[in-house]
Amino acid sequence: MTDAMTPADSLPEPTRTLYLSGESSDEKRQQLLNYFNQTWALYESLFSCLSDPQAWYTKAIPLRHPLIFYYGHTATFYINKLIAGQLIDKRLDAHIEAMMAIGVDEMSWDDLDDTHYAWPDIAQLRDYRAQVKGVITEVIRTMPLELPIGWNSPAWVILMGIEHERIHLETSSVLIRQLPVEWVQPQPHWPVCPRARHRYQDVPKNQLLPVTGGRVTLGKTDDTYGWDNEYGRQVHDVSEFQASEMLVSNAEFLHFVQDNGYQNACWWDDEGQGWLAFSQAIMPTFWVGQPEQPDTLKLRLMAEEVVMAWDWPVEVNQLEAAAFCRWKSAQIGQSVQLPGEAEWYRLREAVPGDQPEWQRPPGNINLSWWASPCPVDTFRQDKFYDLVGNVWQWTTTPINGFEGFNVHPLYDDFSTPTFDGKHALIKGGSWISTGNEALKSARYAFRRHFFQHAGFRYVVSKHKESMTLNPYETDAMVSQYLEFQYGPEYFSIANYARQLVEIALPHVKQRGHALDIGCATGRASFELARYFEQVTGMDYSARFIDVALQLVSGDDFRYVIPTEGELVEYRQLRLKEVGIDRITAGKVQFVQGDACNLKPQPKRYDFVLAANLLDRLRQPLRFLHDITPMIQSGGILLISSPWTWLEEYTERNQWLGGVRENGEALSSYQALQRFMAAEFEEIAPAQDVPFVIRETARKYQHTLAQASLWRKR
Amino acid sequence: MTDAMTPADSLPEPTRTLYLSGESSDEKRQQLLNYFNQTWALYESLFSCLSDPQAWYTKAIPLRHPLIFYYGHTATFYINKLIAGQLIDKRLDAHIEAMMAIGVDEMSWDDLDDTHYAWPDIAQLRDYRAQVKGVITEVIRTMPLELPIGWNSPAWVILMGIEHERIHLETSSVLIRQLPVEWVQPQPHWPVCPRARHRYQDVPKNQLLPVTGGRVTLGKTDDTYGWDNEYGRQVHDVSEFQASEMLVSNAEFLHFVQDNGYQNACWWDDEGQGWLAFSQAIMPTFWVGQPEQPDTLKLRLMAEEVVMAWDWPVEVNQLEAAAFCRWKSAQIGQSVQLPGEAEWYRLREAVPGDQPEWQRPPGNINLSWWASPCPVDTFRQDKFYDLVGNVWQWTTTPINGFEGFNVHPLYDDFSTPTFDGKHALIKGGSWISTGNEALKSARYAFRRHFFQHAGFRYVVSKHKESMTLNPYETDAMVSQYLEFQYGPEYFSIANYARQLVEIALPHVKQRGHALDIGCATGRASFELARYFEQVTGMDYSARFIDVALQLVSGDDFRYVIPTEGELVEYRQLRLKEVGIDRITAGKVQFVQGDACNLKPQPKRYDFVLAANLLDRLRQPLRFLHDITPMIQSGGILLISSPWTWLEEYTERNQWLGGVRENGEALSSYQALQRFMAAEFEEIAPAQDVPFVIRETARKYQHTLAQASLWRKR
Repeated sequence: MTDAMTPADSLPEPTRTLYLSGESSDEKRQQLLNYFNQTWALYESLFSCLSDPQAWYTKAIPLRHPLIFYYGHTATFYINKLIAGQLIDKRLDAHIEAMMAIGVDEMSWDDLDDTHYAWPDIAQLRDYRAQVKGVITEVIRTMPLELPIGWNSPAWVILMGIEHERIHLETSSVLIRQLPVEWVQPQPHWPVCPRARHRYQDVPKNQLLPVTGGRVTLGKTDDTYGWDNEYGRQVHDVSEFQASEMLVSNAEFLHFVQDNGYQNACWWDDEGQGWLAFSQAIMPTFWVGQPEQPDTLKLRLMAEEVVMAWDWPVEVNQLEAAAFCRWKSAQIGQSVQLPGEAEWYRLREAVPGDQPEWQRPPGNINLSWWASPCPVDTFRQDKFYDLVGNVWQWTTTPINGFEGFNVHPLYDDFSTPTFDGKHALIKGGSWISTGNEALKSARYAFRRHFFQHAGFRYVVSKHKESMTLNPYETDAMVSQYLEFQYGPEYFSIANYARQLVEIALPHVKQRGHALDIGCATGRASFELARYFEQVTGMDYSARFIDVALQLVSGDDFRYVIPTEGELVEYRQLRLKEVGIDRITAGKVQFVQGDACNLKPQPKRYDFVLAANLLDRLRQPLRFLHDITPMIQSGGILLISSPWTWLEEYTERNQWLGGVRENGEALSSYQALQRFMAAEFEEIAPAQDVPFVIRETARKYQHTLAQASLWRKR
Repeated sequence: MTDAMTPADSLPEPTRTLYLSGESSDEKRQQLLNYFNQTWALYESLFSCLSDPQAWYTKAIPLRHPLIFYYGHTATFYINKLIAGQLIDKRLDAHIEAMMAIGVDEMSWDDLDDTHYAWPDIAQLRDYRAQVKGVITEVIRTMPLELPIGWNSPAWVILMGIEHERIHLETSSVLIRQLPVEWVQPQPHWPVCPRARHRYQDVPKNQLLPVTGGRVTLGKTDDTYGWDNEYGRQVHDVSEFQASEMLVSNAEFLHFVQDNGYQNACWWDDEGQGWLAFSQAIMPTFWVGQPEQPDTLKLRLMAEEVVMAWDWPVEVNQLEAAAFCRWKSAQIGQSVQLPGEAEWYRLREAVPGDQPEWQRPPGNINLSWWASPCPVDTFRQDKFYDLVGNVWQWTTTPINGFEGFNVHPLYDDFSTPTFDGKHALIKGGSWISTGNEALKSARYAFRRHFFQHAGFRYVVSKHKESMTLNPYETDAMVSQYLEFQYGPEYFSIANYARQLVEIALPHVKQRGHALDIGCATGRASFELARYFEQVTGMDYSARFIDVALQLVSGDDFRYVIPTEGELVEYRQLRLKEVGIDRITAGKVQFVQGDACNLKPQPKRYDFVLAANLLDRLRQPLRFLHDITPMIQSGGILLISSPWTWLEEYTERNQWLGGVRENGEALSSYQALQRFMAAEFEEIAPAQDVPFVIRETARKYQHTLAQASLWRKR
């Protein structure tokens, strides 16, 4: 930071995110009230930049509602969350609150929202906002307030509303920037930075600086409000890399443009090429004019166009930033790319402190200096510039929950829809990032084609982003099985797989190779791997096998289970949490296979588990016949089944039992005994083994399987 | 009994049913072996009357297999029951045992069995029977035998086989009687009665004798083997009546024939007219010749035709017997009909002792006298003749289980298919009724058009048979609800209706009129009737209301529930068994009604129970809206629901909650609270109430409903 520099006088006094702990509830209540009021006022002042009614009612971009929606939305959000959290019980205006509740998420660039809305008057919304402000003020004044403020505190709901409004402060400022310039006007309380180099030749050259490797631990631990995706823990061993000293400036990016970067498909990946074809972009979106005449180019700011500020950071989407990196790689013959999330954190370690501690931040952030970007060589932080602040910096990393991630029940769609491998993280914050946004621990992500006040810094690095898709599994059958095999106990019924393994173990002397046939998502296979040298988990469903393999990889597996009606709960599972370590998991080989068409194999099993299998097979007798020679002499077969025969799975003439034979009732167990007598000895009395499968939060299948143990002669 | 009379010498020594108790197992084992051997030999000797192979292989009547089947069937029956009872584990001949297992039941007279069977050789079957005899002998010799022999004793299975064979001894003798006479031949060891009056004018006239009224208690209590339908208890207060001194003789029946009884539809009920049209009968089936020339008529016996024995009892089906009674009523101007089961027992009280005690029975029964009927004035018993023996006597009573009836698990289709209101009891036994058949407690029933060695005695009586159909309910939904509302507890979860009533009671001060809406089979209505002056049970399903009404009537309700695959369990329910007396039940009025279309009514309810209702309604909010004005100020509404919303019942836009509203999760309970606030006060914290619904013997729905209590303002 240049010591001589002073912030624009007309900016409001910067605010700071609240600490969650403290000594005095009264004091905290007052801080909360101030923070609420400041945020409220700041948000309203942003809309003073709209000079034409069309600016309120016209979509700035097709994927977002017009600004009139956002003006009402942050107020409505409070009301809806307060009702959902049962802190208030009445709506203020059901009509407005229905209309202003749900924004349009940025999806693919060519999604079009064709819904027609009859938006209310601005005046009407002003009245509404005033009423809401009164209600929230009253809630803050009267709600119970214990310190520290936790996830389930009423104050958390208030902070959620405040931080939500601070997000929309920034995203609305981007929408304003995307409106026609004649509908907006600069305001003295939104002062732009006066410094800029207007000749691109004057901009200092960027350079790569070395960064040492080291371990970085991600996950929010500070004492401030956070969104659900910030919590949990993730450890990265970051290798040494080089990073650009400065953010890429408009001047530096000009080389790419002039080298026909937008015309040369080789710098763009498939998604980038698709976006190029759709957008017909030939230069960054906020540049105004003809790129062939760079001296005449202007730069669109939030509320005005100015002569191009060549030393300000270029603002692009991630597709453009990645294309630049590919071009740059070719230029310098090194592996240039965007940093990963962990690399950014490695860089960030050089900046002392964090937003709530800073009297004046060491970068162009938190509205502490100007209401615009500033030259890329303004804020020196250690040996780099702009590690925090100025504009956001794209990373390669698709946002994902850390280990231990939990969905906040009052805002369960904040993060979960973005865990789709398509939303890339931006880091560092911009000049208008305030509150939670300005924290080191903040994690925001957008589709790669989307624009924010975001540019980039490049790195030369060997890191390879694994762009694994890890969305929430919504296949009802997979989710139900995961919950059954790995979820919590209901009605005090112990885990079924564990019960079965415990029943079998005393009888199994040889513990070489076990087969878990009909393994579904694999729980029993993993349990067997604690005791056997080798386990094969086999299922007919490739979908199940995929899930089991993903669990073996050690990744989180996320799934959604129904609670009531269309409402769901979010679950996150990793094997470690059920006590299965990597070595144990590694002993299991999962394969897709058909129990009614087993392939002969040379090795024989010491133990075969067929749990909840027989009454779901087309030909249960064929399976029993085929599995017999695959079991060692002295080996054990455990059959556990509730004998729920259904014609949709097994034709009636194939049912093992549960039928009348010559007029007499023949139970499946009797039929099993009859069939098994030839090659097996029944070594223990059959026993009932209960299990529970959750259908909703209130409805369960509670079943008594019958387990029988057979030793091969 | 005529003292001078002696039985035919050539008959085998009569056997007696075993007593179940005794001092010595060894002795009982020997008795059992003897009883088995005697029965076996007797059955085989019956087949010596077949003189032509066609007699073995041709159906005597379309509704029954040919006799070859019955020859093998009684042996196969032993094997199948011994396997089902796990007393032996191997079949002797799977082919024979599959073919000989299932007889054709007499159904409607025009049912035709078109299956083609490749029956085995007689010699082959003789060998098979010999093998079976060896197996059974070995089982009897070696099985555990504790006294007394009970339902679950191995010896019970043996007795079942013996008594089963004794039934077929009689029914096969009827089939032989129905074969062409040229295919059969009389045998010296099946000697017919030598006495008969061959002029109908010589037959003594029948007369009506008075019988005093009195209480009769039905239900087997003696110490012998019985079929499941004989057990339990049923009390009848029999009014005084008159009964014919003798069975109706061929001579007495001739008047009806000569009076064009078979041609005059007015004496026949609909079923009788249908049978007449089908059979074209003009006289009793065993009469041979032209009825217009009665002097030339012959009588078909089991193995021969003889000159008409006019003083022997006429043998007819129940339709013919009932037609005669109607005709007789018109003749004498009194209400002549067949006796009811209880009336027969009232008559039977005059006969001392029972089959196992009799040295020589006091009637033509148990093969103790002849192998045919005898004159109706042969065996005087008190002031009547033939209260037991000679031929069976049709009653008006459709067979039904007594209170406390249970199905024997090893022969669950012995009685249950006959509890259809269409099978009328025959009482008293015939000359060939032996074993259990010859007991006072025996209960056999046949379709009314069917022939046995059966005739009738008429009565003048005011008794009116209630021919209510009472078959086993097999509608899966009705059965599942009955089991849910009245069946045993599973997983130690208390009865749901009782739980709910107990939750409500402390809050309900006024106990005038309660409404149980969505009452299903009515359990909660009955529970409420313990406390309220008046209860209305309402359900949309008329089927459920019918069931509830039948329960109110105090009758048994029978239903079938699945155990495994196609196997079922039989249940019998009466309100008394769940502690609801007639007075309590009488307070409930069941009505069919639509909760989404409630009719306004002047009286208001003090209490309304809506259990498991809301999430099955088309319009749950409409119901809540409509029920509100029907509740007294201060009255209570209890809503209990698992909130299992399904689009098949409730369109999504009608779901109370379990949806996102303005993007926020809105639970059904929250939505309920919001709706109810206007007119109700919530008077207790909502609570979870578990319930269990059985699907099979191993699979259950285990659900946690949410119960909330609301007081009307």
